[in-house]
Amino acid sequence: MDSQKPYVIGVDLGGTNTVFGIVDAHGHIMSESSIKTHDYKTADSFVEAGIMCLKPLVEQVGGIEQIAGMGIGAPNANFYSGAIEYAPNLSWAHDGVVPLAQMFSGRLGGLAVRLTNDANAAAMGEMTYGVARGMKNFIVITLGTGVGSGIVINGQLVYGHDGFAGELGHVTMVRGKEGRLCGCGRTGCLEAYCSATGVAHTAREILANTDRPSLLRNKPAEEIESLDVSIAASQGDEMANEIFQFTGKILGEACADFAAFSSPEAFIFFGGLCKAGDLIMKPVEEAYNQHVMPIFKGKAKFLVSGLMNVNAAVLGASALGWGE
Amino acid sequence: MDSQKPYVIGVDLGGTNTVFGIVDAHGHIMSESSIKTHDYKTADSFVEAGIMCLKPLVEQVGGIEQIAGMGIGAPNANFYSGAIEYAPNLSWAHDGVVPLAQMFSGRLGGLAVRLTNDANAAAMGEMTYGVARGMKNFIVITLGTGVGSGIVINGQLVYGHDGFAGELGHVTMVRGKEGRLCGCGRTGCLEAYCSATGVAHTAREILANTDRPSLLRNKPAEEIESLDVSIAASQGDEMANEIFQFTGKILGEACADFAAFSSPEAFIFFGGLCKAGDLIMKPVEEAYNQHVMPIFKGKAKFLVSGLMNVNAAVLGASALGWGE
Repeated sequence: MDSQKPYVIGVDLGGTNTVFGIVDAHGHIMSESSIKTHDYKTADSFVEAGIMCLKPLVEQVGGIEQIAGMGIGAPNANFYSGAIEYAPNLSWAHDGVVPLAQMFSGRLGGLAVRLTNDANAAAMGEMTYGVARGMKNFIVITLGTGVGSGIVINGQLVYGHDGFAGELGHVTMVRGKEGRLCGCGRTGCLEAYCSATGVAHTAREILANTDRPSLLRNKPAEEIESLDVSIAASQGDEMANEIFQFTGKILGEACADFAAFSSPEAFIFFGGLCKAGDLIMKPVEEAYNQHVMPIFKGKAKFLVSGLMNVNAAVLGASALGWGE
Repeated sequence: MDSQKPYVIGVDLGGTNTVFGIVDAHGHIMSESSIKTHDYKTADSFVEAGIMCLKPLVEQVGGIEQIAGMGIGAPNANFYSGAIEYAPNLSWAHDGVVPLAQMFSGRLGGLAVRLTNDANAAAMGEMTYGVARGMKNFIVITLGTGVGSGIVINGQLVYGHDGFAGELGHVTMVRGKEGRLCGCGRTGCLEAYCSATGVAHTAREILANTDRPSLLRNKPAEEIESLDVSIAASQGDEMANEIFQFTGKILGEACADFAAFSSPEAFIFFGGLCKAGDLIMKPVEEAYNQHVMPIFKGKAKFLVSGLMNVNAAVLGASALGWGE
């Protein structure tokens, strides 16, 4: 790839929309456009629509000669093969392997196209444009509906032997029968406790098991979302604070284990749950420093992504376009 | 470093002896010699004695021009700085930072000298001469008095931000008050269960808590070592087998978490406990495949080091001498 060229294309391939953006070296999104991910029956027609959507954006910045590369963030994406593999939520890729990088590259004059999952794209975004600039060893943890991760070691994303490494949402935090059922079908995973879904689950559990007063009782328990917990906690609600303490403790203990693995310079958190700020981040850091090996104590930074107010998914994916 | 040169020096700096060896590119140890680690009051006199010990070995292979580099495996070794830092068990390095790589290099005409801990040296040894030849992503787990680890990702040892990454013996396997006290001062660490010490601890616990018959009762409980458990298990002793089942289950579950991190091609086990063979390895692999994320199931190899019958510590350290 040719980093002399001033722009890259970033693509956020989501369950509803697929957003295409042109990004410069400073992380400014020059222009954006999108298509509906599910309006297409086949991968071919999806790619065709994507190219049509991209064309005017590329023209606007002076044509494909101005583009260094393209990065796509997508579910079930294999970086090594450039393919989406059996993605349950994509109608045109749920029962097979779609070599998406190759398909786009073929339609863009052989442009270098790379593909990875959302959390890895987020890590690339932080390293290229965000708080991890200059860092060689860090871990991005995305706290959304699920818990994802992008791990950087020696300045490189960790893809592992098969391209699927970095699934830190699925380390086991509660072993044995007491572990909560996780979306992955196993029990006790970090994700089952520290995702938005996990936080709502914890809230419902505490509400059901006690009769203590809480602002959270103003809503039917089954409708409570993690945002409600954030709002209540920021209003000083004791139970909501306790829920964040519980969540942060598990996340901090997990980070202590991750430190034993790769001793990162920083843990960078991304996603809706971070909006609770210190209410969640303080318990994370406290639990970390309480549980980590003495040799690592106080060394790691705990940061919140600075890319959350822009289209971070497009930006993160675009970082792949610069190559290495 | 110049890999045209046919030999490297490997140094195993242990609590009792420091062994120097000359090693060729096939992993043959050409010659070996040693000094007592604790016969010296200062780091300077230790290095002086080491140089005297090395001299005839180096002469034998044609002089220092034949040596590509030197690797040292040592406790509390920092790869980045080339120094031993506050090593509690080394009389001449327990209360400070000894720039050992630099000191040897200075006495060897500027030879490239690298320093790392035992488990990382073992991983380098496996990659250079052992079962990990050709692998880019694997984890070596050393099962000795403690549990150590050397992690290789993208063909590189993982040292982390500070040089101390790869402490997988100290991920927490049993959380909360039930966790066993570990040598590191924390509780519930992998090492507290899966080291030789941990296995002996488990044996004493089961013996004390039941009155079932076992060959292990032929010895006073406080004298039982992990080797006794191996011997009893190989003779079909039910309780000894149960101890390995318990140990292997914890180790396998830990490996399932490690897969979520770096998805290695293989887990390679090294050390005394491996001599129990399938008695320990089968439960490890079973627990792994039972607990790992579906996407990783059945993918990783479980291997035992092939370097255990030679002086693996010298060999492992020597691998660092070839540089990268």
